[in-house]
Amino acid sequence: MSETEMKLVVVGAGGRMGQTLIRTVHGMDGVRLHAAVERPGSPFIGRDAGELAGLGAVGIPVTNEPLAAFLHADGVLDFTAPAGTVEFAGLAAQARIVHVIGTTGCSADDEAKIRAAARHARIVKSGNMSLGVNLMGVLTEKAARALAPAHWDIEILEMHHKHKVDAPSGTALLLGEAAAKGRGIDLKDHSVRVRDGHTGARPQGTIGFATLRGGSVIGEHSVMLAGEGEMVTLSHSATDRSIFARGAVTAALWARDQKPGFYCMLDVLGLN
Amino acid sequence: MSETEMKLVVVGAGGRMGQTLIRTVHGMDGVRLHAAVERPGSPFIGRDAGELAGLGAVGIPVTNEPLAAFLHADGVLDFTAPAGTVEFAGLAAQARIVHVIGTTGCSADDEAKIRAAARHARIVKSGNMSLGVNLMGVLTEKAARALAPAHWDIEILEMHHKHKVDAPSGTALLLGEAAAKGRGIDLKDHSVRVRDGHTGARPQGTIGFATLRGGSVIGEHSVMLAGEGEMVTLSHSATDRSIFARGAVTAALWARDQKPGFYCMLDVLGLN
Amino acid sequence: MSETEMKLVVVGAGGRMGQTLIRTVHGMDGVRLHAAVERPGSPFIGRDAGELAGLGAVGIPVTNEPLAAFLHADGVLDFTAPAGTVEFAGLAAQARIVHVIGTTGCSADDEAKIRAAARHARIVKSGNMSLGVNLMGVLTEKAARALAPAHWDIEILEMHHKHKVDAPSGTALLLGEAAAKGRGIDLKDHSVRVRDGHTGARPQGTIGFATLRGGSVIGEHSVMLAGEGEMVTLSHSATDRSIFARGAVTAALWARDQKPGFYCMLDVLGLN
Amino acid sequence: MSETEMKLVVVGAGGRMGQTLIRTVHGMDGVRLHAAVERPGSPFIGRDAGELAGLGAVGIPVTNEPLAAFLHADGVLDFTAPAGTVEFAGLAAQARIVHVIGTTGCSADDEAKIRAAARHARIVKSGNMSLGVNLMGVLTEKAARALAPAHWDIEILEMHHKHKVDAPSGTALLLGEAAAKGRGIDLKDHSVRVRDGHTGARPQGTIGFATLRGGSVIGEHSVMLAGEGEMVTLSHSATDRSIFARGAVTAALWARDQKPGFYCMLDVLGLN
Repeated sequence: MSETEMKLVVVGAGGRMGQTLIRTVHGMDGVRLHAAVERPGSPFIGRDAGELAGLGAVGIPVTNEPLAAFLHADGVLDFTAPAGTVEFAGLAAQARIVHVIGTTGCSADDEAKIRAAARHARIVKSGNMSLGVNLMGVLTEKAARALAPAHWDIEILEMHHKHKVDAPSGTALLLGEAAAKGRGIDLKDHSVRVRDGHTGARPQGTIGFATLRGGSVIGEHSVMLAGEGEMVTLSHSATDRSIFARGAVTAALWARDQKPGFYCMLDVLGLN
Repeated sequence: MSETEMKLVVVGAGGRMGQTLIRTVHGMDGVRLHAAVERPGSPFIGRDAGELAGLGAVGIPVTNEPLAAFLHADGVLDFTAPAGTVEFAGLAAQARIVHVIGTTGCSADDEAKIRAAARHARIVKSGNMSLGVNLMGVLTEKAARALAPAHWDIEILEMHHKHKVDAPSGTALLLGEAAAKGRGIDLKDHSVRVRDGHTGARPQGTIGFATLRGGSVIGEHSVMLAGEGEMVTLSHSATDRSIFARGAVTAALWARDQKPGFYCMLDVLGLN
Repeated sequence: MSETEMKLVVVGAGGRMGQTLIRTVHGMDGVRLHAAVERPGSPFIGRDAGELAGLGAVGIPVTNEPLAAFLHADGVLDFTAPAGTVEFAGLAAQARIVHVIGTTGCSADDEAKIRAAARHARIVKSGNMSLGVNLMGVLTEKAARALAPAHWDIEILEMHHKHKVDAPSGTALLLGEAAAKGRGIDLKDHSVRVRDGHTGARPQGTIGFATLRGGSVIGEHSVMLAGEGEMVTLSHSATDRSIFARGAVTAALWARDQKPGFYCMLDVLGLN
Repeated sequence: MSETEMKLVVVGAGGRMGQTLIRTVHGMDGVRLHAAVERPGSPFIGRDAGELAGLGAVGIPVTNEPLAAFLHADGVLDFTAPAGTVEFAGLAAQARIVHVIGTTGCSADDEAKIRAAARHARIVKSGNMSLGVNLMGVLTEKAARALAPAHWDIEILEMHHKHKVDAPSGTALLLGEAAAKGRGIDLKDHSVRVRDGHTGARPQGTIGFATLRGGSVIGEHSVMLAGEGEMVTLSHSATDRSIFARGAVTAALWARDQKPGFYCMLDVLGLN
């Protein structure tokens, strides 16, 4: 255990993503688990974080006191829910540490509070922490800019497991935003999110969404640009939930050396 | 021009599918164009059918008198609309000839009238005349029967060109019916045709549909069976509209030697 | 722990597949781990099988004495290598138990010895234990039979992770055999396994193979039937190595009630 | 017929691509067919170019005298063979016109002669004239640069119709070059073009190729970047041979206003 290893706190430690984060931190070089946090009343409080994650005991009991957990840590990995994330951002600012946020569904108000915390914390926030998805966003924007709406139609398809409760996925919307940016349009005014029955011909310049659900699919996304006699398709397939955890750890390591501020994965990846 | 060539009438001769039928009949062995029919008032009446179809003149002017056209013919190829098709079926019965029907959107009442005509006509009717799509239907039914709904979710995806005005496609619904038959369930009670916003988890045993539109795509269909850790996908891709015309001609040649009756493509293909 | 639970031995317990089998047996109903076997000299001898598999201790040390391990067991799960598998089949015959064999690369001589053991053991042997892949084989044979070689070309594509050392995969060859069977031809005489440089036009009636390698892909297989203007594709995607382990446990539970004999997955699945 | 319409010569007018070029020039705005050239001895000499292409007579007989044909033309569309193309480039330079070259298989020596002609002609040369494929090249280079070879493996897959006689396709190699450029490596030293039998593990940093052949497939290309637990795929599908002809006409219109020189499709598309 080296002095230079980055000490990371996993919040939401009892959830599926929390457990994946604990295993990923355990398996990667340059980082180590410093603390594991759950909310008060969680049945996981007091249990060993490693045992929870299927690693065997690591001597770190799950705690419900985030401030104490953050105090001597270097960073926090957070895939929880908006209310918790806003609170954790405030605590990360107090502790002057890194806060990597994979939480989705934040309101404009939540977002404002998180950005305020970024005056003192180094915050990396992304709706999707995978390297491949972030590259997809960049390529989608470039393709949408190059291929004119008069002759090329953009469609976004996603598939996830049967337990997912909302549609389209956050990543599908992120790709839709990238396409809209490339086209210089507002996604809200140009989305087609449902097709059923008599739809009429496809309105030119729109961006269509379609959703599939089934099995244990972790996440498949495709952006199609369909022209006259040809089609370009950009696809991303995630087959292991740990890609998001690995991306989060990579972001934490990157942010450690940055000034306080609000960053995204493109900064981490040098694609900005 | 041989005595044994089957003499075929193309109805709806001025439409895109009509023109494809004329070209396909012209290019295949064992058949020849006998007449080309359009409805009264069509601007195509009197024009040469071959020139319409880009073949150069063939000496057959488009007519608006179907009965005269059918009288000395052996068969009719019909991808028009329900009202016309019901009328043509009656005339085919009078002429005791083959009637190949690719028309979609027939009501139960239309269907009953067509079946009545099949007492005297040899009728082959299918929502999709392609060999590949009909095979897909058979494989879909078999797969849906083998893979239990408790562990396998069925999704049907289709993509068509930007001009298509309805969703899902007739072929997607045909594949959905095949899956439902394999599962021994009623498609109507188990379809999920729209997903947007908070959908909740996927209801077990349902069959989901998703629709893409763009470019000049002639027809792409996939049936996905998604299980825990694995997925089986059956796909069909049409890249040339003539596959439906070729299937229709194949059906006409097959039906020539059958007794009057109501047949489908699986009969033609020996898959029944 | 019920009297009616099937007591299973995992051989090759220290390997990646052995560990997956241990975890899968632990997680499924109706079965329990009875013993875990490695070859003499393995560094895993004496270690707790559950700890090896990341489950925490289960009180079953890995042993190098298969006969003792099989004696009071109901079945053996075996994804090892031909020499070991032949030996285990003999021991399973002595013990009159079930032997599920996922081992690949057996010679004709190995195969003969395994079949001899099946006079007393209940043996289920398959190159691929996944339900989806076995269904694919059945569908491939049916499609290859329906679509004539004069107009339809069969191609088989597979992708696996970067560590795989042979090509094409056993499953790709199994699908090739299914296609050849449907066509009534011998695969050896009709395979095209390499295309590079000046190949000439595709010889009619052949079955082509193509191989991709990269990343952590567990196993992707597609059978394409390409015709004039249309294509039918059957695909299988494995995203979790446990599908083979789950299939093996399912096979063991099924074989428990059968007479001694040599079976395959299609028997297990009712597709024969 | 406007004074400002660009007058185009189609060389190789009797071939499949020549006929497609004639139809495309006929169907697009801003251009018109000026002459159609075949080599001496061709059976097409003297026949009407429009009739050859299925358009009906256009009053332009196919000629075997390219110099006369080029003299009062604005540009030449050329998808022939290297020897002819080198000759046509020289004549285009004499006539000071545009020469759009889709010919493949030129030697280094041919290439040098063509570049010499570009001192006086405006030459646009590309192994693939489709907008989508050229975009794919740009995206492939960007993706290959962003995703490090230590963790991401690049594979290129192509499928074409059963009549194609070489492998991999020129477009697959063009995409391979784009990937190699992104990685800063030489494609020749890093290609894996055949996998069969015992291959060993995938060598890190290589670019793999795989080839499928069947049916009437016009051209499918995929670039896969396979990482640990995720994969990014860029695909292009051509379903109509006219995309290359349309691209060639677009290039000719663009080049009309340029200075003499040697250009590629990225110049035409503003992606350089």
